[in-house]
Amino acid sequence: MKQARNKASFDSTILTEIIYGSRENVQKINEAFARVEKALGTDDTSKLPACYGNMNREDAFLEGLKAGKITWEDGFVHKHDLFETMNHQWTAGNSNPFGLHTLLFIPFIRNQASPEQCKIWIPQCESGEIIGCYAQTELGHGSFVRGIETTAIFDEMTDEFIIHSPTFSSSKYWPGALGFTATHAVVMARLISHGLDHGVHAFMCPGWNLEILGNAPIIFWPSETTLTFARLKMAYNAVDNGYARFDQVRIPRTNLFMKSCHLSRQGVYKASKNRQKLLYGGMLNSRRIINRIMAFKFAQALTIAIRYSTVREQGQGSTSFANPQIGEIAIMSYKHQNYRLLSNLAKVYAVFFASQHCDDIHRIHQQKIAKDDHSGLPYAHMLASGLKAWATQTAADGAEDARRCCGGHGYLMISGLPEIFSSLTAMTTLEGDNYVMWQQVAKYLIKNINHNVWPEDMSYIQRRSSSGLHEKCQARGNEFRSCKVLLDIYEHRSARLSTEVAVMIAAPSNAAGTDVWNTYMMQLFSAARAHIEVIILKSFIGHLDRIMDNATKIVLSRLTSLFALTGITSPGAIDAIGFVEDGYLSSCQLRDIRSQIDDLLDELLPDAIALTDAWNFTDASLCSAIGMKDGNVYETIIEWTRQLPINVNAGKTADVFAEGFETSIKPILRGQLQMRERARL
Amino acid sequence: MKQARNKASFDSTILTEIIYGSRENVQKINEAFARVEKALGTDDTSKLPACYGNMNREDAFLEGLKAGKITWEDGFVHKHDLFETMNHQWTAGNSNPFGLHTLLFIPFIRNQASPEQCKIWIPQCESGEIIGCYAQTELGHGSFVRGIETTAIFDEMTDEFIIHSPTFSSSKYWPGALGFTATHAVVMARLISHGLDHGVHAFMCPGWNLEILGNAPIIFWPSETTLTFARLKMAYNAVDNGYARFDQVRIPRTNLFMKSCHLSRQGVYKASKNRQKLLYGGMLNSRRIINRIMAFKFAQALTIAIRYSTVREQGQGSTSFANPQIGEIAIMSYKHQNYRLLSNLAKVYAVFFASQHCDDIHRIHQQKIAKDDHSGLPYAHMLASGLKAWATQTAADGAEDARRCCGGHGYLMISGLPEIFSSLTAMTTLEGDNYVMWQQVAKYLIKNINHNVWPEDMSYIQRRSSSGLHEKCQARGNEFRSCKVLLDIYEHRSARLSTEVAVMIAAPSNAAGTDVWNTYMMQLFSAARAHIEVIILKSFIGHLDRIMDNATKIVLSRLTSLFALTGITSPGAIDAIGFVEDGYLSSCQLRDIRSQIDDLLDELLPDAIALTDAWNFTDASLCSAIGMKDGNVYETIIEWTRQLPINVNAGKTADVFAEGFETSIKPILRGQLQMRERARL
Ligand SMILES: Cc1cc2nc3c(=O)[nH]c(=O)nc-3n(C[C@H](O)[C@H](O)[C@H](O)COP(=O)(O)OP(=O)(O)OC[C@H]3O[C@@H](n4cnc5c(N)ncnc54)[C@H](O)[C@@H]3O)c2cc1C
Ligand SMILES: Cc1cc2nc3c(=O)[nH]c(=O)nc-3n(C[C@H](O)[C@H](O)[C@H](O)COP(=O)(O)OP(=O)(O)OC[C@H]3O[C@@H](n4cnc5c(N)ncnc54)[C@H](O)[C@@H]3O)c2cc1C
Repeated sequence: MKQARNKASFDSTILTEIIYGSRENVQKINEAFARVEKALGTDDTSKLPACYGNMNREDAFLEGLKAGKITWEDGFVHKHDLFETMNHQWTAGNSNPFGLHTLLFIPFIRNQASPEQCKIWIPQCESGEIIGCYAQTELGHGSFVRGIETTAIFDEMTDEFIIHSPTFSSSKYWPGALGFTATHAVVMARLISHGLDHGVHAFMCPGWNLEILGNAPIIFWPSETTLTFARLKMAYNAVDNGYARFDQVRIPRTNLFMKSCHLSRQGVYKASKNRQKLLYGGMLNSRRIINRIMAFKFAQALTIAIRYSTVREQGQGSTSFANPQIGEIAIMSYKHQNYRLLSNLAKVYAVFFASQHCDDIHRIHQQKIAKDDHSGLPYAHMLASGLKAWATQTAADGAEDARRCCGGHGYLMISGLPEIFSSLTAMTTLEGDNYVMWQQVAKYLIKNINHNVWPEDMSYIQRRSSSGLHEKCQARGNEFRSCKVLLDIYEHRSARLSTEVAVMIAAPSNAAGTDVWNTYMMQLFSAARAHIEVIILKSFIGHLDRIMDNATKIVLSRLTSLFALTGITSPGAIDAIGFVEDGYLSSCQLRDIRSQIDDLLDELLPDAIALTDAWNFTDASLCSAIGMKDGNVYETIIEWTRQLPINVNAGKTADVFAEGFETSIKPILRGQLQMRERARL
Repeated sequence: MKQARNKASFDSTILTEIIYGSRENVQKINEAFARVEKALGTDDTSKLPACYGNMNREDAFLEGLKAGKITWEDGFVHKHDLFETMNHQWTAGNSNPFGLHTLLFIPFIRNQASPEQCKIWIPQCESGEIIGCYAQTELGHGSFVRGIETTAIFDEMTDEFIIHSPTFSSSKYWPGALGFTATHAVVMARLISHGLDHGVHAFMCPGWNLEILGNAPIIFWPSETTLTFARLKMAYNAVDNGYARFDQVRIPRTNLFMKSCHLSRQGVYKASKNRQKLLYGGMLNSRRIINRIMAFKFAQALTIAIRYSTVREQGQGSTSFANPQIGEIAIMSYKHQNYRLLSNLAKVYAVFFASQHCDDIHRIHQQKIAKDDHSGLPYAHMLASGLKAWATQTAADGAEDARRCCGGHGYLMISGLPEIFSSLTAMTTLEGDNYVMWQQVAKYLIKNINHNVWPEDMSYIQRRSSSGLHEKCQARGNEFRSCKVLLDIYEHRSARLSTEVAVMIAAPSNAAGTDVWNTYMMQLFSAARAHIEVIILKSFIGHLDRIMDNATKIVLSRLTSLFALTGITSPGAIDAIGFVEDGYLSSCQLRDIRSQIDDLLDELLPDAIALTDAWNFTDASLCSAIGMKDGNVYETIIEWTRQLPINVNAGKTADVFAEGFETSIKPILRGQLQMRERARL
């Protein structure tokens, strides 16, 4: 491993500072992780991590609470927000029972509460006086928010809202921390006043009976029942996602979130003109955060898989031309292995730089909003949605591919990879299902094209479509590494796909609008994806210019080219046919591209370890027996396996094996079945 | 749901009989499942299935033993082999602690033991006198079997072999049932006699000290230690995959498997000329079984997702052109949803029919072998390997896509989908990693092309390459549904890819053979995949001819066309670029293909439920709250969530919530942190 590390052509700590913004940040993060890991006891990596112990649901939840408390305290005492969006393993914040509080609840208040409401609620939130969760999804409704059934009927007599679940399918189901941890929830419900349904609005609902807090906690939501379903999900099992049915729960009128709407004492409703825009803005923030987290979590998967592939030796070369004279070789040398791992690593960096672009845009948009300028919303919203769809699918699928690259040992929970995949794949659904997200991008594109409006990000579509899209790519050989050529290829595809589908959508037809949209949905997705990939490639290229260190810049340029080129010819490249079907790229050019990829892989191979080291993950945060920095794989696997309670307890009294033997094995063994069978005859 | 069921254009029971071979088989299977589910108590689907209960490792293992015993007994008493290759949920047999016995151990004896050995061991196996497992993989070696390090040194003095683990990495790690259940293991080790290493051979190793069976079971393998790692894997957690290190374990010389080799009393070794072929033959059988299981398990995922998508209503059409006047619509109506689900369903049938082809070939090959004719091996071996790689990847990725189609509820363990995906994805690694498998296919292709040998399955390559591969596809419109046209398209791509890569490999170069192979590995994979897809398409088409019922035939023809066409233009189609890069298909033709797909989806939509009902899965075997036959989704989700022990126990003494509250929540709540912070200043 040391040897592999020494081969690098650049200094990985420089890249670390680029990723985290500055040397000081890296230092701060290192210190925070050191404190938290010490407090959690995860710093001693010879010990089996608790999450792999014999944890049943209760244990998992308690572990989650413990970690949540420790990270919360660390941020509080040391004044940082590191663990507000993610946990001690770089998993998104909703993996932590207190995570929803900082990830969704507080930002929601900031965004939707009136200044007076903020003044009350924010200090309560920040001091930990209340702990919140976000209760939108119901059994029957997730994506279609307008379909939410929970009602909030205004009772003028008492100046209260009555929160109620009128149907079975209106039960809240999924909200993280609703099961038990949270004291308060933002509840989405239909505001009804004087018989008029004003649509879905947000309400602050206190949960527990806070009066009894001093005593033993008899916890209840003011609702029929709550259920928690820790360990009932693919991942995030330390969180008490919950279920709640409201039975005529009364809250003060002033608990309606009133930044952009108002209900008077007399029940008269008024909404500001920017209400819808503000709502979108809120979702935008959580999607932006998800995009960032995706990069880190995805980077963890690649760190583990690349380290393992560097130390794992298997075979003497190809199965067909093996040479028994030579020793075994590291699996990283196999072409498919380095092709898969390095092209995924390129995607990690692509996701990361794109998420930084998304952060920049968000910041600018927020500054404008403060001046009541909402003009940045359409692009910011489209970008956060589209990038969320792209990044989550790319990261989940890439992590699973990295897992498969580790053979049998990648199937072990203690490799850390199954959990990483499971946590990533949730994100394809969470905060807006990806196929719903793609439609946001498509809608933006089609609307603008049809109205002949050309925002900055779409100017290439205008330019290229107006010149007829007849040109062909002229590049050969290593010209395919040029950023300009690569952007041309991606822009050409995107411009063609979006103008083509815009024509289809606009064509006179006797179907209703919805049907037309549904008919061409697959084409709309392709166009949306292609546009997002242009933006991602552009932001990747744009970030290269900011890198001062030359060696680092060279390596990242190679990664950029690898990213763009494998996006065209890798076997699993999505919509790759779109690059060639109109003859823009010829078969000779594709051969050149494939050969450039081979060269790039050879050039990048010595830097693979450094490119993962750059993420600076602690061994404890990776939580992987096969991905630790020292590459000491086999000993760790056995060390951890030995510590499993089932093995520790084997042979002791009340041993599970004794029970299993008596009840299930002995009756079969030694032909007992046969004897019984005979006896029956 | 009833309504959806009634829309079908054909009688799904006819298809059920086709899938299971005959009406009698269906009847027998129904009876067996009914008995087993009653014995297991899973027949009452209002009860939370035990596998979702609060099961820790011990419970999971005991449940596995129980289910294993019940299915074993059922087969024994009712004389059937239904549960010899899969468990009561259609999961591959290695999901059952006794499963390896019938799946690998007995077949291995049949294939590798001498007639005298068979005479002793087979009756012991069949009566349950011994229970076996298959111990090949070591910590350090999986794919590269020749690298196995365990030694079996012949001791002429005592006429025994000494089985030993000389290094840490030589510890056996992974074998299912080795941890505890099995009494015997087939152990792969290097046969060394008179200092000569004869390579890896199989030995029968008794495990437990069988003398003490009557008493309390003090179980040990005659080895340093055994460990089991139930619940340490993504799935198959009811099985005690195990770890063992051999410390000079002595077994009689006659425990060497001697069908195709022999070691004399004097330690003289002799191998028959067909030894290698016999070994391949053995692997072939388990891969064949995997292919079959893939179809059923994959079908389960689609059954659940399609049923859920039929009852789940979300939104009023597209997000952009919604019409608030109309009610909500079933998500199955969304184009991407039916595109993804139906194209995956087409793949389910493709896997199934291809696995039947594989079974046929295997049968014929076995008959030939009985006459010492090994000529069928190359094709049978290539087919089982390639199909294994194709089917396992297709099924795993398809099941995950189906899971994502179910939104948040698909992320619940009780949807059944996470476990299906996890069990399928293991198969991409097990019994030969897929990328190693693809190389077997590539090797077969390249060897034959280079030697100008053209077996039946490759005759199209010869024919097409000799005519120069210059032709273009001439089809338009609905001609793209024609089997002949579709086969032409697939054959053309495959012929082109394999002849091109054969030329690359044969080109003079100064690199060693291995390096050339490694250099063009990605192209070799593409060629291998393309050839396997030709075979799969052919077998799908071939099976259509055998269907008598016209309505069924029409539906399956549509599925065939859908399968082939989405393999070209679906966004995620692998190596799709290969169909167009040489101009064989034009951009107009691709447009026609996309429009044919749209039509096919519309035609198939009413049959979606019937096409999944046809698999005849019991609700209990699906083990899914969202995929039951009656479509009663929400009630089941809540019913099952309520029964989780953590919820049942909430509020009782020693409640986890009380503990969590005291230790982690209370210290944060009500601004306690802030107060402590102040105190510190
Ligand atoms: C781990 C986890 C944590 C969660 N935490 C919270 C939380 O804290 N608070 C909370 O309120 N919720 C939470 N959720 C719920 C989550 O927000 C929803 O699952 C998500 O919004 C998707 O909605 P859905 O489940 O209803 O999917 P559905 O909308 O039912 O989607 C199912 C399928 O229908 C398709 N579909 C739906 N509508 C359309 C359309 N208009 N056009 C085309 N296709 C469509 C989708 O693409 C998808 O394929 C959580 C979920 C998970 C998995
Ligand atoms: C659930 C489960 C149950 C199992 N049960 C058993 C059992 O009962 N008995 C038993 O003996 N074993 C068992 N195994 C082990 C299994 O057989 C091995 O995991 C499998 O053979 C793959 O080998 P590996 O893990 O060594 O992967 P590796 O060979 O280490 O593969 C890692 C990576 O290297 C690549 N690679 C390796 N060699 C080459 C090559 N020559 N060319 C190109 N690429 C290469 C692979 O493609 C892969 O990407 C089980 C495994 C699992 C997951």
